[in-house]
Amino acid sequence: MRMVDLIRKKRDGLPLTKEEIRFFTEGYVSGVIPDYQAAALLMAIWFRGMDREETAELTFAIRDSGEKIDLSGIDGVRADKHSTGGVGDKTSLIVAPIVASCGVKVAKISGRGLGHTGGTVDKLESIPGYRTDLSEEEFIGVVNRTGIAIVGQSREVAPADKKLYALRDVTSTVDSVPLIVSSIMGKKLAVGDDVIVLDVKTGSGSFMKTEEDSRQLAEILVDIGKKAGKKIMALITDMDRPLGEYVGNALEVREAIETLKGRGPGDLREICEVLSGAILMLSGFAGTMEEGRTLAKQAVKSGAALRKLREMIEAQGGDPLVTEDYGRFGTAPVECEVPAAQDGYIAAMDTEAIGKASLLLGAGRNTMADRIDMTAGIRILKKTGDRVKKGEPVAVFYTSDRSRLDGAQAVYGQALTYSETGPAPRPLVLGTVE
Amino acid sequence: MRMVDLIRKKRDGLPLTKEEIRFFTEGYVSGVIPDYQAAALLMAIWFRGMDREETAELTFAIRDSGEKIDLSGIDGVRADKHSTGGVGDKTSLIVAPIVASCGVKVAKISGRGLGHTGGTVDKLESIPGYRTDLSEEEFIGVVNRTGIAIVGQSREVAPADKKLYALRDVTSTVDSVPLIVSSIMGKKLAVGDDVIVLDVKTGSGSFMKTEEDSRQLAEILVDIGKKAGKKIMALITDMDRPLGEYVGNALEVREAIETLKGRGPGDLREICEVLSGAILMLSGFAGTMEEGRTLAKQAVKSGAALRKLREMIEAQGGDPLVTEDYGRFGTAPVECEVPAAQDGYIAAMDTEAIGKASLLLGAGRNTMADRIDMTAGIRILKKTGDRVKKGEPVAVFYTSDRSRLDGAQAVYGQALTYSETGPAPRPLVLGTVE
Repeated sequence: MRMVDLIRKKRDGLPLTKEEIRFFTEGYVSGVIPDYQAAALLMAIWFRGMDREETAELTFAIRDSGEKIDLSGIDGVRADKHSTGGVGDKTSLIVAPIVASCGVKVAKISGRGLGHTGGTVDKLESIPGYRTDLSEEEFIGVVNRTGIAIVGQSREVAPADKKLYALRDVTSTVDSVPLIVSSIMGKKLAVGDDVIVLDVKTGSGSFMKTEEDSRQLAEILVDIGKKAGKKIMALITDMDRPLGEYVGNALEVREAIETLKGRGPGDLREICEVLSGAILMLSGFAGTMEEGRTLAKQAVKSGAALRKLREMIEAQGGDPLVTEDYGRFGTAPVECEVPAAQDGYIAAMDTEAIGKASLLLGAGRNTMADRIDMTAGIRILKKTGDRVKKGEPVAVFYTSDRSRLDGAQAVYGQALTYSETGPAPRPLVLGTVE
Repeated sequence: MRMVDLIRKKRDGLPLTKEEIRFFTEGYVSGVIPDYQAAALLMAIWFRGMDREETAELTFAIRDSGEKIDLSGIDGVRADKHSTGGVGDKTSLIVAPIVASCGVKVAKISGRGLGHTGGTVDKLESIPGYRTDLSEEEFIGVVNRTGIAIVGQSREVAPADKKLYALRDVTSTVDSVPLIVSSIMGKKLAVGDDVIVLDVKTGSGSFMKTEEDSRQLAEILVDIGKKAGKKIMALITDMDRPLGEYVGNALEVREAIETLKGRGPGDLREICEVLSGAILMLSGFAGTMEEGRTLAKQAVKSGAALRKLREMIEAQGGDPLVTEDYGRFGTAPVECEVPAAQDGYIAAMDTEAIGKASLLLGAGRNTMADRIDMTAGIRILKKTGDRVKKGEPVAVFYTSDRSRLDGAQAVYGQALTYSETGPAPRPLVLGTVE
């Protein structure tokens, strides 16, 4: 088998066999196949796509490219959620304690991230003392004791994905459905969860700009999860505007805590309830999603979910008093309001651009070597559909570096579109795929 | 400017600007842009193509990527021919002495080659003593003294092409019109010729399988040559069967000498006359191609062309007696006839497969590190349209290594298609593009 022939085959629109896909992933991880041949194949895949079977085989090849995380030492139903990523998406920090407080076991391995903010692991590290580098033994121990732990990746799970993702990032081959699917599911399937709930975002702030594309992506993700024997479903949710009010690391953890206290913004509360409901249903704790959602609301109302978060923070070495005293996160030294450019309604928000503004304020990373400013970020005061007066603040910026304000402000200003009449409301949860 | 954005732009079907193309070629040659980003761009170009302007800009960027060969020290009209490459194509060895004997200056820099035989430079090295490594001063001196010299490449002409070609070879991006065009013309335009005649092959033994594709390729090549201020035209010639009777290195030089003696096979004589006629017309030595062709015939008949070849061989240190005593080339120790598989007409020849058989006999290189067997090759006894009886020899193989015969025979047998009636004759020169 020669890599150049595989490239030609895909380039000419022919499907690759299981053996060919494994030849590629194994050769690429071991370094026998060079980056330039992998890059050519990725671009050919971008143009030609992959059928369901090829996509599944690539996913399984990525899953099998490294070590697996064995969760069999955890008693009970092990569940995870995964979001395709969006601006202001702090749902993991809310959903995980909610379902854990209801009895589901959440052993979550999260990533660091490039982009508008850090990943879940970065956000949690804004809590003083919180350790994301537990050993596997400690990790399993915390889950068995408290029902929940969220840590960073210690072992080389799905190294093929890591290498491929880095290559896609610099070769403009990120936005390809089979490559997105195999990346997400290759990693997820390397971890021994029983239940997976996916939050597939749609709109200006996500990979998939249209609902139809998002539904198609969701269907393929769910199909592959089922092929691998998982209980799995996907929600398609709106990312035409940021989720919640805050974008940033410490800011998002604070908002998650507020939401667990029942005081979060409506959109964030709704999505977290629905996601939790889905997990509770698939895990057997509720007969229907609606029942699951009711359980989730009760877990918030009773304070059980917040207590679960506090337990986790304490078990992982963090300061549990952050849930009561937000000052412990530290405060950004620079604050600045962004005024509305005109009178009218906010007709649309370019969510990706808002993410970019957050990055410019220091909340995210351009490259993995960048340091995150934990207190930096944005409070969004006005969102799509809100009526504003010219000069009225639409957002507040937080940063440690005053020189970052101008660039971020310019980008944020461009992200908003105004109109004389309010836009039609759009539902937050657009559909489910089972 | 970021390479990843250039890749995305081309991937999305947008044309690249002159500045973007230069950014790429300069960055790639200097090593700032890595192979994997170049590979992704090449594949995107394979899918999206390039418009005329982009193709010209890429060509000029390749031309300007290294040193130029200044031919201004040569008095007179400097002309070159270039073939897109075919099996049995030894026309340079015939056309160059013909036009030089008529007064055109031929300062030819040729390449070594991968594939069924070596390149023109390899073939000439089958002449004992012939030096292809003249210094630039010696080279210009020989042309001024004799009117002709053919040497190998000494300086880094068009290094972008060298690097890109090597990458295309391993990423299945060879057969892309803009990449073929910019590779051919980038190199040609780095040499200071006044006149260029292109021989664009069409059929089973060439990049372009159909006449239409070949015409399109020819038009783009000519267009770019004109943009660069050259007198240029292209012939579209048949490569649905090998050219002449011999494939190999010393074997092809012998056949070239025979043709200069007026005894070569008809197809080879015809193409060489037409190519010479085109060069003589563009160089101002003839009013029309037909007039040029008549001059070419006379140069062969009078013996002037053969004398010119002998002069060149002598001036470059080679043994001029090879033109009279073919034994001086050496002889392959192993000879073997290939029998016809059945009675009938030869309906078609897979020219590429015949080239492969020649490679298997040792006449070509798989990688640049391989040594060429100078005496190895094939004599083709029966070609498309010939009637044969089962068992009658259709070809003779020459090699230094008996173990190579079986593989070559199997490939050659598969290359021939038989039929009960003769195929319609196909003209050799299918068109011209000016």
